Amino acid sequence: MQKISAEKKALIILSGGLDSTVCLYFAREKYTEIETISFDYSQKHKIELQKARRIAGQLGVRNTKIKIDTGIFQNSSLVDKSIPVPKKGKVSSGIPNTYVPGRNLLFLSYAVSFAESRGIGNIFIGVNALDYSGYPDCRPEFISAFEKTVALGTKEGVGGKGIQIHTPLLHLNKKEIVELGKKLKVPFGKTHSCYDPIDGKPCGKCESCVLRKKGFAEAGILDE
Amino acid sequence: MQKISAEKKALIILSGGLDSTVCLYFAREKYTEIETISFDYSQKHKIELQKARRIAGQLGVRNTKIKIDTGIFQNSSLVDKSIPVPKKGKVSSGIPNTYVPGRNLLFLSYAVSFAESRGIGNIFIGVNALDYSGYPDCRPEFISAFEKTVALGTKEGVGGKGIQIHTPLLHLNKKEIVELGKKLKVPFGKTHSCYDPIDGKPCGKCESCVLRKKGFAEAGILDE
Repeated sequence: MQKISAEKKALIILSGGLDSTVCLYFAREKYTEIETISFDYSQKHKIELQKARRIAGQLGVRNTKIKIDTGIFQNSSLVDKSIPVPKKGKVSSGIPNTYVPGRNLLFLSYAVSFAESRGIGNIFIGVNALDYSGYPDCRPEFISAFEKTVALGTKEGVGGKGIQIHTPLLHLNKKEIVELGKKLKVPFGKTHSCYDPIDGKPCGKCESCVLRKKGFAEAGILDE
Repeated sequence: MQKISAEKKALIILSGGLDSTVCLYFAREKYTEIETISFDYSQKHKIELQKARRIAGQLGVRNTKIKIDTGIFQNSSLVDKSIPVPKKGKVSSGIPNTYVPGRNLLFLSYAVSFAESRGIGNIFIGVNALDYSGYPDCRPEFISAFEKTVALGTKEGVGGKGIQIHTPLLHLNKKEIVELGKKLKVPFGKTHSCYDPIDGKPCGKCESCVLRKKGFAEAGILDE
């Protein structure tokens, strides 16, 4: 059996949400071998991990769950039971309390260790900087700085072919993400976006629900 | 009780080795409140975690152990039982097989999430780029790129006072690190450097042992 080269392998950070699932479907069109990682960080919407596993499973793609010790992330309404997730039915300005300190930095760093350990040359993350919650770690300037850090701080970056960070959704709005997902035949109904589901069902009022609804409405596509 | 501001708090990445312990002793002279984190990544020299806990305990400093799932890091002689740690009694050129993929990137990212979650404004890491094993993630250019990434990708970096990354040993050689440790009254004998100890005792021949011995010999100080 011929060994598959690192450039033909991709690792997708899969939350089980709309964006990361579109990323996964996007990547599988272009890479020979793909796998996914998901993070259990004691998030209130831990149900997304089941979704991620099923989505990956249906594609026959490996999904590794990585456990981040409870208590590492604090002071975020996504993990702290004493801080309610805002459910205003609209997207607010500024950085909301759903911000999780350094989350994408940690997720991406895990992805780098995972990928470099296994000879995977590409990492996908579904960040986007248009219809988003104002998180600093979803912005192009952050991703670009992170890429430089990886190029300088890994064996692959210094002496090999490097590890590429791909963000195909970075400059798309939610409508365009939904349209891309439709084209790629993403099973929208199997994905989960809500920050604080009630009995496993989306609340419909948190920022993540609002952005999702807006995207489907503007695209004129059913969320199913 | 007055709240201590983030600028007066420091978090030290403490392996239990010589360098990180010198860092801890250095930081406690300058900051009002300090705490430490250590990483269990299934390293062969896991004994360093006990040392870290004791060193912190003796100073009355909190030590949080963070578990990184076994299997994240692969293809490194520090974690993989099928790859022997080189014991040539000298420091080789190039990046040795003790390199752990993206380790400092992951450790630093954890430290950022931990610090930002708790209102800690300073992170210390004991990397040095002179008497070291050639790891890319110990070099000044990596640290500098990481700092920029943190400034762009965190709420503290974008809207607050930022999180500073301190590397007081970066440009010191091992002799100077030992001398600094002596000045700070570091209990050298309680630290552990060996990559692959035999019955808990340093092997004396791995690169880490060799560098340590060289530092003490050149400084004319006893390792005790």
